[in-house]
Amino acid sequence: MGAAQSFRDMCDRTKNTNVRLSLPAVCVVWQTAMIILFGVFIRYDEESDPHWVEHKASENISSDIENDFYFRYPSFQDVHVMIFVGFGFLMTFLKRYSFGAVGFNFLIAAFGLQWALLMQGWFHSLDYNDGKIKIGIENLINADFCVAGCLIAYGALLGKVSPVQLMVLTLFGITLFAVEEFIILSVIHARDAGGSMVIHTFGGYYGLSISWMLYRPNLDQSSRLQGSVYRSDVFAMIGTLFLWMFWPSFNSAITDHGDGQHRAVINTYLALASTVLTAVAVSSLFQKHGKLDMVHIQNSTLAGGVAVGTAAEFMLMPYGALIVGFCCGIISTLGYIYLTPFMEKYMKIQDTCGIHNLHAMPGVIGGIVGAITAAAASESVYGHEGLVNTFDFEGAFKNMVPTRQGGHQAGGLCVAILFGIGGGIIVGAILRLPIWGDPADDNCFDDEPYWELPEDEESVPPILQYNNHMRNKD
Amino acid sequence: MGAAQSFRDMCDRTKNTNVRLSLPAVCVVWQTAMIILFGVFIRYDEESDPHWVEHKASENISSDIENDFYFRYPSFQDVHVMIFVGFGFLMTFLKRYSFGAVGFNFLIAAFGLQWALLMQGWFHSLDYNDGKIKIGIENLINADFCVAGCLIAYGALLGKVSPVQLMVLTLFGITLFAVEEFIILSVIHARDAGGSMVIHTFGGYYGLSISWMLYRPNLDQSSRLQGSVYRSDVFAMIGTLFLWMFWPSFNSAITDHGDGQHRAVINTYLALASTVLTAVAVSSLFQKHGKLDMVHIQNSTLAGGVAVGTAAEFMLMPYGALIVGFCCGIISTLGYIYLTPFMEKYMKIQDTCGIHNLHAMPGVIGGIVGAITAAAASESVYGHEGLVNTFDFEGAFKNMVPTRQGGHQAGGLCVAILFGIGGGIIVGAILRLPIWGDPADDNCFDDEPYWELPEDEESVPPILQYNNHMRNKD
Amino acid sequence: MGAAQSFRDMCDRTKNTNVRLSLPAVCVVWQTAMIILFGVFIRYDEESDPHWVEHKASENISSDIENDFYFRYPSFQDVHVMIFVGFGFLMTFLKRYSFGAVGFNFLIAAFGLQWALLMQGWFHSLDYNDGKIKIGIENLINADFCVAGCLIAYGALLGKVSPVQLMVLTLFGITLFAVEEFIILSVIHARDAGGSMVIHTFGGYYGLSISWMLYRPNLDQSSRLQGSVYRSDVFAMIGTLFLWMFWPSFNSAITDHGDGQHRAVINTYLALASTVLTAVAVSSLFQKHGKLDMVHIQNSTLAGGVAVGTAAEFMLMPYGALIVGFCCGIISTLGYIYLTPFMEKYMKIQDTCGIHNLHAMPGVIGGIVGAITAAAASESVYGHEGLVNTFDFEGAFKNMVPTRQGGHQAGGLCVAILFGIGGGIIVGAILRLPIWGDPADDNCFDDEPYWELPEDEESVPPILQYNNHMRNKD
Repeated sequence: MGAAQSFRDMCDRTKNTNVRLSLPAVCVVWQTAMIILFGVFIRYDEESDPHWVEHKASENISSDIENDFYFRYPSFQDVHVMIFVGFGFLMTFLKRYSFGAVGFNFLIAAFGLQWALLMQGWFHSLDYNDGKIKIGIENLINADFCVAGCLIAYGALLGKVSPVQLMVLTLFGITLFAVEEFIILSVIHARDAGGSMVIHTFGGYYGLSISWMLYRPNLDQSSRLQGSVYRSDVFAMIGTLFLWMFWPSFNSAITDHGDGQHRAVINTYLALASTVLTAVAVSSLFQKHGKLDMVHIQNSTLAGGVAVGTAAEFMLMPYGALIVGFCCGIISTLGYIYLTPFMEKYMKIQDTCGIHNLHAMPGVIGGIVGAITAAAASESVYGHEGLVNTFDFEGAFKNMVPTRQGGHQAGGLCVAILFGIGGGIIVGAILRLPIWGDPADDNCFDDEPYWELPEDEESVPPILQYNNHMRNKD
Repeated sequence: MGAAQSFRDMCDRTKNTNVRLSLPAVCVVWQTAMIILFGVFIRYDEESDPHWVEHKASENISSDIENDFYFRYPSFQDVHVMIFVGFGFLMTFLKRYSFGAVGFNFLIAAFGLQWALLMQGWFHSLDYNDGKIKIGIENLINADFCVAGCLIAYGALLGKVSPVQLMVLTLFGITLFAVEEFIILSVIHARDAGGSMVIHTFGGYYGLSISWMLYRPNLDQSSRLQGSVYRSDVFAMIGTLFLWMFWPSFNSAITDHGDGQHRAVINTYLALASTVLTAVAVSSLFQKHGKLDMVHIQNSTLAGGVAVGTAAEFMLMPYGALIVGFCCGIISTLGYIYLTPFMEKYMKIQDTCGIHNLHAMPGVIGGIVGAITAAAASESVYGHEGLVNTFDFEGAFKNMVPTRQGGHQAGGLCVAILFGIGGGIIVGAILRLPIWGDPADDNCFDDEPYWELPEDEESVPPILQYNNHMRNKD
Repeated sequence: MGAAQSFRDMCDRTKNTNVRLSLPAVCVVWQTAMIILFGVFIRYDEESDPHWVEHKASENISSDIENDFYFRYPSFQDVHVMIFVGFGFLMTFLKRYSFGAVGFNFLIAAFGLQWALLMQGWFHSLDYNDGKIKIGIENLINADFCVAGCLIAYGALLGKVSPVQLMVLTLFGITLFAVEEFIILSVIHARDAGGSMVIHTFGGYYGLSISWMLYRPNLDQSSRLQGSVYRSDVFAMIGTLFLWMFWPSFNSAITDHGDGQHRAVINTYLALASTVLTAVAVSSLFQKHGKLDMVHIQNSTLAGGVAVGTAAEFMLMPYGALIVGFCCGIISTLGYIYLTPFMEKYMKIQDTCGIHNLHAMPGVIGGIVGAITAAAASESVYGHEGLVNTFDFEGAFKNMVPTRQGGHQAGGLCVAILFGIGGGIIVGAILRLPIWGDPADDNCFDDEPYWELPEDEESVPPILQYNNHMRNKD
């Protein structure tokens, strides 16, 4: 009778993960909505419109190379690689969830960037003359940034949610992001070029709160699938390295032309280099026999990039960037060793990829570093014009001073945390509804419920033997 | 006696795939020919020659940054990645043909780009003063484009041809491409920035026609090797994602400086995003239990990029790009589900990678979209100068009007189809000669005939056990 | 008794590879030293400092796009990818050393680039007014170049050294590199844009000399792990292709703005294309049945990029680049077939990755090609200004003539070889000290001593069967 019961449960469960109607419906309906909204609202801006040639003449721009496209396109492509290959492959480390990692990442990013163009456009790029959003390369970068927040949240939920839940998470995540970003950047006038607060802190706490709402007490039923295998760890390193290498582009993609982009690259490059050494040191020191743990190499080596996100365009100084990276490598690795198990056991937060250590904590550190660096800014270091340019002390904020800017930065950090936690709890509650097709506890971390799986590697060797056999016969 | 016969067949066959003389001969002789032809014909153009400094002065160019190199080099590198990593890894999905996929792709692309520099050079970059072809960054991009046509054709033949056949296919493919491209772009004066017609339609039908000529009725003898395995599908996603991410660079690489490149990027970015959602929707809807099929995710998500190739630089409008992507995601995925099996069964076209769904059909759609968008162009939308710049209504075509341009676009599409099918049938006939070392029907989709294979993964675990054993003893 | 002895040896050995104290100590102490030295010495240069806006005005620079950042950042990112993904994944070919390949490559590159910024900064970017090193994008590129020399050396030692030894190798390697580079470029005034001499010749002989000093007569005890497996060879192709594709960026990253970068890209692109064909030809010709060997495809296809490093910015001419690539493809592949086994057997040099064939020999060829091309330079080909710009005949060298420049190039090559061999012998002697935790002869080429390994792939299939089983029951 127990067997009959468990068989029935099994059937129920298998039925639950059937997303044959919900997933296509969500994709087609939402994509159709995008088309309609784009038709109503989205147009090319003056730099991507054929009237550029007239705009150039009227603005006395001497050359096509002054088009913002040439300032930002290389960085944009690097950011694009981080979003799709970086985040996607970083999550392939699980032994049987590589399709879901890279495939669902692909799906929600492709949806999210469209919705982000609209949401961010309404707040930042609306032309009040004709009610249209005018987009150019900077909007594409910002849309990718916006998506990053949701992909971070996915990291906490990896293997435990259905693609439909991920689409819902993305819809709300992008919406919350755009509001939070507007408040932080425009209302509070905090600066956050690389998004330590806006992207990483928000995305991290958003994901952790959802994970807390979706807590699964019996997740150990899937423990057989919760680790990595040798080759999946190598795949994950593809993600790690593309994130690591292109992070300087991420933090500099929307900073000021000229020295702003230049300096942001240098600071990020240095912070990341420093992080690698301390992550390796702590990983080795805290393991039996001093062996390195791939989890730390894959993740903690990136923490420095998160933590210089806000201050990358400021005069953090090269040694300052190294110090930030140094500390974050240590904190992030210790987080993986102590904090993640603690949070799972005592706080009911199951964080598959350890985003608390890679995004949330370093994001908060980044917000604090940004506040301090801003508060310490002075005309003697930046020059008068440099200070105005870097902190955008113009328009309504032309009387701003660095110390007050530091306070505004801190205020921005609080907003990011509040939106992350608050939004996560609400969205988590929605995702608990029993209609989204999420897997049962003993079916987590498995591609089987949502993917047609090919036959296994095992079936190959006999064929090869057959070939070798033939070869020997020749 | 049957056994003796089959043994003899086996020997024959094994002998046939021996390319020890033909492959080195083709590589060395053709490469030597390239050196001679380059020596006679190819020189640096005025932007890559040390006389640039004088050219700059005489043309009143104010800065080195005006060198075309800085407008196009980032896009060139992205295209380069698409050709070698994108196409190469996309084809690694077969369980035992990864070496051939990525290795032969590498070989024929490296040869093809040299031959393309010559062929395209004679048509487009010949300096009639000294009879030399002058090359710069735009020629390198065009050579990569030209190669793409042949790599697409390889997709239809993957696993069924020898490297020597691929070299022959490339030699003729590049030649046909250059002629077809000259007719479409210069004679007919169609515009085709991203090559929907010139590259994808031509390459697709070229490959399909060759596949039809090389039809193998007993290919099911290799059916054991025709699928993927778990890890090979993850490798293929590397190819998919690099193609997907860098497609905006592909479609904008040779468009006009300024708004032309800018707009082509935006259109392609949006079309691709839209395609992902409908490809996922259809994949899920048409599978048992709503599970996604990796074949669709790997391929159909790219169809939107193909289909906006021609119109990417036009005023397609953001919502127009979304609509094109929307339709292509559906059509391409349905193609994989219904059309590929139909074509194999009833039309004797065996299309290993489904290039009909990824390149040929979306290419034709792209040609049609381009014709419509061109025909609908107006000065009110483009501005006078914008219209002239975008459609190049200059010189012999300065009296062209958009509606007639639409007709020319349609004419270009027909030329691409004709060259693809006609060229493919001729080249297919050549490739049927029994001298090229192609594999037998039961030896297809296998790296064994052309590669020294390492021992199999299987032999590793015992060693690891040994190590673990040692560890436990400590 | 023999068993007891061997057991004791085994214990000793296992203890030896414990780097739990030494590795963290080296990482933390050296990183701390970096922070202090950066604090004392490193500042932003005038293009990455907020005073850029004033600098722009005082130098009459019309636009932010003139900032060196926009000339070099795309190339920098490509070089960055080569260092971390290119070198890292190229070395993942061994069946059980992928973690070490990509992980230790990551570690030493991250350390090396910091130390390189200091060492190269003292020699080349020291501002004598304030005693500070002023860094910008060109310094970051040069630091990556400097690191490349050490990663090449790692290739010879792959699998036979501990991470601590690699850190020591890097510390000394960077130091030697900076001195050698200063002598070659500044004292001797040789030109070496792509580093054929400075990077590849030096790095190659440095690694080979160390390997000679660390000769292991009983290395065959690890022979079971010395080969590749199918999937690891595919991973290695990721490294190969990213190196191959981005090599034009490597050789052009620090050449002159305008035609200098443009020409270096064309030459490198062509040399690499040519190399692929001859590497394939020789690989096929010298194997039984004409089958291709992945080792050659992964490595020898890159030799052309090394060999045009010095001459890439000169008027090598397109056919000249093809000829260089043609020869190097042949020489490098023959090197793998004949020279590597010869060197191991008779010269006691164990070269895991065959860097002699990929870097040392092609580097020397590159130095010679550079000397010849420089000696043959003339005003009729370059123009007067072009000649002065290309060879930097200014300041103390304004009376230099091309023939003498050729002699200086040859002198530079000799310096690179001497520093490589001399430095390698000294550093090799240091690395023989029994304190560095290197693995025993029967424990080489194995990730087990330095990495926490996940369970093996093997354990997965039963789980999958379980799932399939469930599925069938539905």
